[in-house]
Amino acid sequence: MSLVKFDEMKQTVKQAFLNAGLNEKQADVCAQIHTEASCDGIFSHGLNRVARFVDYVKKGWVDVKAEPKQVKALGSMAVYDGQRGIGITNALFAIDRAMELASEFGIGIVGMRNTTHWMRGGTYGWKAAEKGYAAICWTNTESCMPAWGARNPRLGNNPYVMAVPMKEGSLVLDMAMSQYAYGKLQVTRLKGEKLPFPGGFDKDGNLTDEPGPIEESMRILPTGYWKGSGMAVLLDAMAAFLTAGAPTNEIDKIQEGSCTGASQVFMVFDPKHFGGKEFSENMATSVAEYVKTSTPAEGQRDVFYPGEMELANRANFSANGIPADDGVWAEVQQLAKR
Amino acid sequence: MSLVKFDEMKQTVKQAFLNAGLNEKQADVCAQIHTEASCDGIFSHGLNRVARFVDYVKKGWVDVKAEPKQVKALGSMAVYDGQRGIGITNALFAIDRAMELASEFGIGIVGMRNTTHWMRGGTYGWKAAEKGYAAICWTNTESCMPAWGARNPRLGNNPYVMAVPMKEGSLVLDMAMSQYAYGKLQVTRLKGEKLPFPGGFDKDGNLTDEPGPIEESMRILPTGYWKGSGMAVLLDAMAAFLTAGAPTNEIDKIQEGSCTGASQVFMVFDPKHFGGKEFSENMATSVAEYVKTSTPAEGQRDVFYPGEMELANRANFSANGIPADDGVWAEVQQLAKR
Repeated sequence: MSLVKFDEMKQTVKQAFLNAGLNEKQADVCAQIHTEASCDGIFSHGLNRVARFVDYVKKGWVDVKAEPKQVKALGSMAVYDGQRGIGITNALFAIDRAMELASEFGIGIVGMRNTTHWMRGGTYGWKAAEKGYAAICWTNTESCMPAWGARNPRLGNNPYVMAVPMKEGSLVLDMAMSQYAYGKLQVTRLKGEKLPFPGGFDKDGNLTDEPGPIEESMRILPTGYWKGSGMAVLLDAMAAFLTAGAPTNEIDKIQEGSCTGASQVFMVFDPKHFGGKEFSENMATSVAEYVKTSTPAEGQRDVFYPGEMELANRANFSANGIPADDGVWAEVQQLAKR
Repeated sequence: MSLVKFDEMKQTVKQAFLNAGLNEKQADVCAQIHTEASCDGIFSHGLNRVARFVDYVKKGWVDVKAEPKQVKALGSMAVYDGQRGIGITNALFAIDRAMELASEFGIGIVGMRNTTHWMRGGTYGWKAAEKGYAAICWTNTESCMPAWGARNPRLGNNPYVMAVPMKEGSLVLDMAMSQYAYGKLQVTRLKGEKLPFPGGFDKDGNLTDEPGPIEESMRILPTGYWKGSGMAVLLDAMAAFLTAGAPTNEIDKIQEGSCTGASQVFMVFDPKHFGGKEFSENMATSVAEYVKTSTPAEGQRDVFYPGEMELANRANFSANGIPADDGVWAEVQQLAKR
């Protein structure tokens, strides 16, 4: 494990992206977003996604020349075809457009269909909240999880993001519909540990907290059993509805890596058209404080609100360097060789 | 357990509501909604909520004279103050208004603040879907669940609804943020059974599948542990944001029964302004079929999509009578005495 300064990580990632064929602006923006994810402690979607993204670009699964193309627009809503361009720049375009619409109409809803992996979902919630907007964003994905009561994966884990700005910081939820990411299973297995709670089924259908048998069976558990399963189904259908895009069963036919062809939704709300900035920020702060001042459970020192840990990581890692797995860091440095 | 015909149940509930002081139209509409909930198999929010509602009306906690009052309107969005009127009629007004706005603008978002218990959340998703619209609705509530890592209840279970219409039937998700309702704990305890999965903590902080100790501790488990907890926080803040209404910490101060003063959101989308009716219905049907034709897990005969069981119950109970607990039915009959 190394501690890498934000600027050094960003510049290295940027060079890797330039080498892969992204232009100056694309490489800069994408390197910023990957580095921010690691800097917020979301290691699963930061530095360690760089090599896979470069691979997708090389295979032509991500088209670096493609730009979002408008399909539909009516007042507060707009739909774009992402044309399998860069997931990050497509999603940033969408959240920016949704903020513009929200400023004018109170609400801005942008659908982005036929796009590619947006990396860390929380990015787009934070971007909106940092500019004072509330946001709800989600994406569907290819199948990676069985529906509740089923044996074979037919649901995406369909990450879902909600953000409400506070006076200082923001409430930001970023959750997938599986209880654990495959990355978490792998890390736990490599440590020779068990999951804190059951995370899926073994090949015989027994619920288990052993990561290895779950990775083998691909029978990862929906969060909250039938609830995360049901929500994954509806997020999928609603994303395809609002983008006139592909649901999971269509994405599964594409077979060009994770999230290629996905449908994404970006809903943004401007407080000035609802209760006003001051009311909203004070209200959100009261929500966070009420949670924060709960009595901690046995063995807990602290209760956290969504977004709190990311902001603490950001402060810490910005000042002291971002933790980076040595193998992952070496791989990205290799990709960045001129 | 009795089997009661839909019309008989509805007429009896209606008379109970007339006796409580509702006018003809209010009593008819509310009786219809309570009966529909039981007829769809959502027994927790149908017949068995009648007596509690009557009690709230008698205490003046629900004001049967109050009508929703417009607070704000801008294009596709509108905000109303429910003035602590009848939760059902307030919510039906809101979903109807959201459908009107969606027809015109593609999107309709109605916030309803300072309202009372809407009973079964799924009602409003079904109402929209049956008219061909997609919908997302949710409400915040008073505290009934500790945040993840906390000992004392400071979160609402904040029911969340999503609906997308299909060619036949609809995909309808209706979930609260607790793994189990208190009603489910009670029913399981009375049967002397255990919960299928752990449902909360005992007073010493041990996770348990015994309902009794959870009811005692009020330490009910958020669905998906930290995930349902985080989502409850954001649904609360976002509901208050979009209605300029009360978050859970304010509702907790009211102390006039369940959901009095709550903030509710009704988002509706008209397919004609997105991918069109035909595309949307076919897409949703493909989502349902993909789930439905999964390989069932060991010991399962069938895999269900959200809304499927409710529709099957509706057909069965409409034809054969709605199952009603004898004690509950006798109580409502008593309230309906002229």
